[in-house]
Amino acid sequence: MSLTIGVDLGGTNTRGGLITASGEILCKARRPTRLHLGAEGVIDGIAECVRVVARQGGVSLADVRGIGVGAPGPLDPFEGVLISPENLQCMHGVRLKDRLEALLGLGVAVDNDANLAAYGEQWLGAGRGVDHFLCVTLGTGVGGGWISEGRVMHGFNGNAAEVGHIAVDHEGPRCPCGNFGCLEMYASATAMVRRTLERLKRDKPKTRLHAERLTTQMICEAAEAGDAFAMQMFEETGVFLGVGLVSLVNVLNVNRIALTGGLAQAGDWIFEPAKRTFWTRGTIGVKEHVEIVPAELGDDAGILGAARYSFEMAADSF
Amino acid sequence: MSLTIGVDLGGTNTRGGLITASGEILCKARRPTRLHLGAEGVIDGIAECVRVVARQGGVSLADVRGIGVGAPGPLDPFEGVLISPENLQCMHGVRLKDRLEALLGLGVAVDNDANLAAYGEQWLGAGRGVDHFLCVTLGTGVGGGWISEGRVMHGFNGNAAEVGHIAVDHEGPRCPCGNFGCLEMYASATAMVRRTLERLKRDKPKTRLHAERLTTQMICEAAEAGDAFAMQMFEETGVFLGVGLVSLVNVLNVNRIALTGGLAQAGDWIFEPAKRTFWTRGTIGVKEHVEIVPAELGDDAGILGAARYSFEMAADSF
Repeated sequence: MSLTIGVDLGGTNTRGGLITASGEILCKARRPTRLHLGAEGVIDGIAECVRVVARQGGVSLADVRGIGVGAPGPLDPFEGVLISPENLQCMHGVRLKDRLEALLGLGVAVDNDANLAAYGEQWLGAGRGVDHFLCVTLGTGVGGGWISEGRVMHGFNGNAAEVGHIAVDHEGPRCPCGNFGCLEMYASATAMVRRTLERLKRDKPKTRLHAERLTTQMICEAAEAGDAFAMQMFEETGVFLGVGLVSLVNVLNVNRIALTGGLAQAGDWIFEPAKRTFWTRGTIGVKEHVEIVPAELGDDAGILGAARYSFEMAADSF
Repeated sequence: MSLTIGVDLGGTNTRGGLITASGEILCKARRPTRLHLGAEGVIDGIAECVRVVARQGGVSLADVRGIGVGAPGPLDPFEGVLISPENLQCMHGVRLKDRLEALLGLGVAVDNDANLAAYGEQWLGAGRGVDHFLCVTLGTGVGGGWISEGRVMHGFNGNAAEVGHIAVDHEGPRCPCGNFGCLEMYASATAMVRRTLERLKRDKPKTRLHAERLTTQMICEAAEAGDAFAMQMFEETGVFLGVGLVSLVNVLNVNRIALTGGLAQAGDWIFEPAKRTFWTRGTIGVKEHVEIVPAELGDDAGILGAARYSFEMAADSF
């Protein structure tokens, strides 16, 4: 049986799974990412996670075809080097591919976590059977992974599909990326909470929401309970998201978009205005063919995509 | 010698060239596109142009490997069907590939003219040696052709790289495509002339420009002569263009962009503000590697790209 181990390296947890060539997850493990131990500790933690997964699955590393690792960008997927991930400060500049290959004696393929989540969804989830697919993560930021003709697209230096950083308002607020009015400033979970807090303070609306520890889940619960202000916040956020999706489809010409991340959990509160806006503004001859759907694989998307990518890289090198 | 004939079908002229596998243009022909004769006349005109080119080059059609045709979008490059090109009303729905193959007895590959101009530039012009390349046409509209990993990208139904239809202002004016605030509404030659006329009327600025038959070339000449209002029009247009290019690079991760079309003729008047804006707003780690350059092949880009595409299609089918 052909096996790989897919790893999803996050700022909080490192997840791993032993995965067959047909996408069955034989076993999984999760351990905290030990940022306080610095780069060495994080790298050792990934290797340990890989070994634990193999042991749980009853196989030795010699039985494993390769390792795929999804990590936060920006990174260089060709060299497997982390560049400057915001949530993994200690890992800046780390040659993760080389380091893990030396520790584990196996081929390691490293890519952006958003790319690999998209690849997982395209393999076994919301993008099954679709060769031109975009997966958009609505979380702290707005991230993306993009598949064209069935393959993960990287661009010249691995920074393709930074979909949160298209400008939807050229005079909008400055984004940490250097641009102004980025989609991420309007349609991330963080942006929605920030805008809601600003509006609470400025307009003092009649609402059950209050400023303490506000989350999109709380705004969603308020909307469910009929809170008009909370509904309005989703409406605005969904419209911005729809505006962004129109631009993305006009450039990438994908015919399915899956939404994932915290804000996507709000279901129709966010999907309905996003889809309506997409329909209103999209191009005739294209928009009729585009589906906007929820992602299906949750946290498993990343390890599945990493495993798939590892299979592909291993195949390319033979 | 391996030969193809590249054709560029425009609303005004049909151009053809007999082209070698190394990109040498052995001979060229140009004839008016006879729109008044309807679809039959236009199709016969293309076939006639192909025959004239072969005759001029001293070869028979049997010596030609295939025909490539660039035509205005939207079209279906997989089936070779023109859908609804604005400047070729009589050609809506015409199965151009099938019709020409029947007339000429040769394999015909049809693609968007902007895609094939990009392919030509990537082969022999401003995109030489660059695998991730975008060619942006600033004319009546803003069009684009995009190469990734050395291949023309089409997306799911051939409408990738419609770069004029990303929103740069979600509350901007309605675009004929259905979207609002599209790049094309700000950075096409047409948009620049329209904005200049509006400003002339509204602000009555001190300028040598006047409203009759205004063109971007006239605005350019005024700027060259030190006309501050004309300079300001280029500055604004270039900033909008730069805003669009930042979004495009953040999604496509190309490392060279060539500008072509009427507005690109204005040289630094448009390049300088566009590049400056790109530099101000672009993402660190990406923008340092991106070159924004003038296209090099002029009208030959289309026939060269069409020929190249025909070679590629012929190779794929053997």
